[in-house]
Amino acid sequence: MNPIRIAIDVMGGDFAPLNEIKGAILASKIFRDQSLTIEFVFVGKEQIIKEALKNLDIKDMKFSVVHADDIVSMDDDPTSVLKRKKQSSLFKGIELHANRSVDAFVSAGNTGAVLSTATILLGRIKGVSRPTIGTFLPTQSGKPVLLLDVGANIEGRPRFLYEFAIMGSIYSKQVLGIDSPKIGLLNIGEEEGKGTENIIQTFQLLKNSTLNFQGNVEGRDVLLGTSDVVVCDGFVGNIVLKFAESMLGLLKAKIASHAQKGFFQKLAVMIMLPTLKHILKDFDYQEYGGVPLLGVNGVVIIGHGKSSPLAIQNMLIRAVEVYNKKINVSIESALQISAEHNSNDIN
Amino acid sequence: MNPIRIAIDVMGGDFAPLNEIKGAILASKIFRDQSLTIEFVFVGKEQIIKEALKNLDIKDMKFSVVHADDIVSMDDDPTSVLKRKKQSSLFKGIELHANRSVDAFVSAGNTGAVLSTATILLGRIKGVSRPTIGTFLPTQSGKPVLLLDVGANIEGRPRFLYEFAIMGSIYSKQVLGIDSPKIGLLNIGEEEGKGTENIIQTFQLLKNSTLNFQGNVEGRDVLLGTSDVVVCDGFVGNIVLKFAESMLGLLKAKIASHAQKGFFQKLAVMIMLPTLKHILKDFDYQEYGGVPLLGVNGVVIIGHGKSSPLAIQNMLIRAVEVYNKKINVSIESALQISAEHNSNDIN
Repeated sequence: MNPIRIAIDVMGGDFAPLNEIKGAILASKIFRDQSLTIEFVFVGKEQIIKEALKNLDIKDMKFSVVHADDIVSMDDDPTSVLKRKKQSSLFKGIELHANRSVDAFVSAGNTGAVLSTATILLGRIKGVSRPTIGTFLPTQSGKPVLLLDVGANIEGRPRFLYEFAIMGSIYSKQVLGIDSPKIGLLNIGEEEGKGTENIIQTFQLLKNSTLNFQGNVEGRDVLLGTSDVVVCDGFVGNIVLKFAESMLGLLKAKIASHAQKGFFQKLAVMIMLPTLKHILKDFDYQEYGGVPLLGVNGVVIIGHGKSSPLAIQNMLIRAVEVYNKKINVSIESALQISAEHNSNDIN
Repeated sequence: MNPIRIAIDVMGGDFAPLNEIKGAILASKIFRDQSLTIEFVFVGKEQIIKEALKNLDIKDMKFSVVHADDIVSMDDDPTSVLKRKKQSSLFKGIELHANRSVDAFVSAGNTGAVLSTATILLGRIKGVSRPTIGTFLPTQSGKPVLLLDVGANIEGRPRFLYEFAIMGSIYSKQVLGIDSPKIGLLNIGEEEGKGTENIIQTFQLLKNSTLNFQGNVEGRDVLLGTSDVVVCDGFVGNIVLKFAESMLGLLKAKIASHAQKGFFQKLAVMIMLPTLKHILKDFDYQEYGGVPLLGVNGVVIIGHGKSSPLAIQNMLIRAVEVYNKKINVSIESALQISAEHNSNDIN
């Protein structure tokens, strides 16, 4: 059996290249225990990579290095990469995947740049209008919910949202192993007929589909964990995602300011912190192994800029799962079936 | 000087009529200390109100009772009140305000029903396209931010959002005493030109206005407290508000499930809770004294269904402030000026 080859943008994250390489080392051990032959292709500045490798225990890891002269920063305009940063690790890594030198691409870099570069270089799966990126949020039920789209598409056309639901459902089922993923449509009321014109039309598409559609869910329902996938346009999803991330910051700030009020307050906070940290562990995006870019002809996993080695490890494991489960074949076939059934009602 | 008269929908909240009446008693003491003559009109089922008054110390409170036979529940369709619930405390209270028997109306009942009934019975301020309801959220800076709209208008036309900004700015300045309120436009990126077509056009209207417009703010910025007012359409705002409210529920659920893991975990949670409760006090909507319905010809303050007596007290204080500051006159004049200046660019 040929090894599975994964290109890693080792210049992408905030702690690049160290966290990327350490994550690959951690993943190597897990893959070895699973008797999987995985080969990493580190894409980035060769000199920096070699320097980083010096002090690490890499004897069990199969890897090669592909030099890339340039770096895409978090501030770079996503669309400019295609014109001006063809020598970047991000571009070259996706290019390796586009010409099938590797089977997957993983990056903790500029999400928008990965999205636009991958969409152009890899192309879309047949039947997909717009690729989408989701995010996992912790829930009261203990099972994360996949919210999508979170910023790839700010236009909420019913057809787009409908496709997001199909892709999210397939991902949840085949990769996360959820039997019949429950799909919710993010809205401002539970009743059918609520919401904008786009949302009302999307409701009808979902209702008439073969998906396990639960109907509208409100902002307060997302974190209950009653849905496996919550669908929205990228404008709403991006705002909710960034708002959610900032809640933890607000809590931390309030705790810090409480501790500054005096000796006893500081003591109380010190006593409380270990328990609170334990409780908040679930809120940590690192656990979820990045998010997939769904709808492109390839396997692309995107991580948070602050990804730890553990987060990178989980992204690499996820990449192998997505590759092995061939979810793109399922997406193409599901969209083909839906197009045949619904050719008259879809915008 | 004539007394200021406030109608209270005493059947509105989840703990009606007791919390409404207790809140009025608390407010009476404060008004007396401020040498303000305030008279309450309790609107609701006379028998129930009289029963509730029996065990309370009401000797310092000036009030009367207006009987209303019917009750609007939280589940009632907002628009149906105008047709089928004209005998309700909600309708009758607003009607008293519409015919100027009272100077303000306060309710912790069905928000949508208050919105639609007040809009029809009181009418809109000249120049206002759509009345709006906002919410206050706690921030890292310690000062709450006013997010609006949070559900009154799901349509995000530039003209609507622009008017929300003007009304929010006037409210922040005249009622909250913020000198030059900073206005942010909720968006998915900071750069000019980001977002939907509606948002891009709204940006231009705000940029060319005399408001203290700070530009786009992202989901992560709302809780930082860098803006005094954050403007969005009611679809996005409602989802963010309900999502925010649910975060606390998620935290509580995680803490409870941690406590169930064993003796030491339970002990740790018990030790931590008083401090945490103290820290989370700021997250409590009760503190903010309800939210105003802005843009109607009148003074309408809406509270959370779960409003405590303290929350009702604060809503009554707020109602008097809004009445005394005559913000509706300022809103009318600001919109008139803006219409003269921008008559060509506004949609």
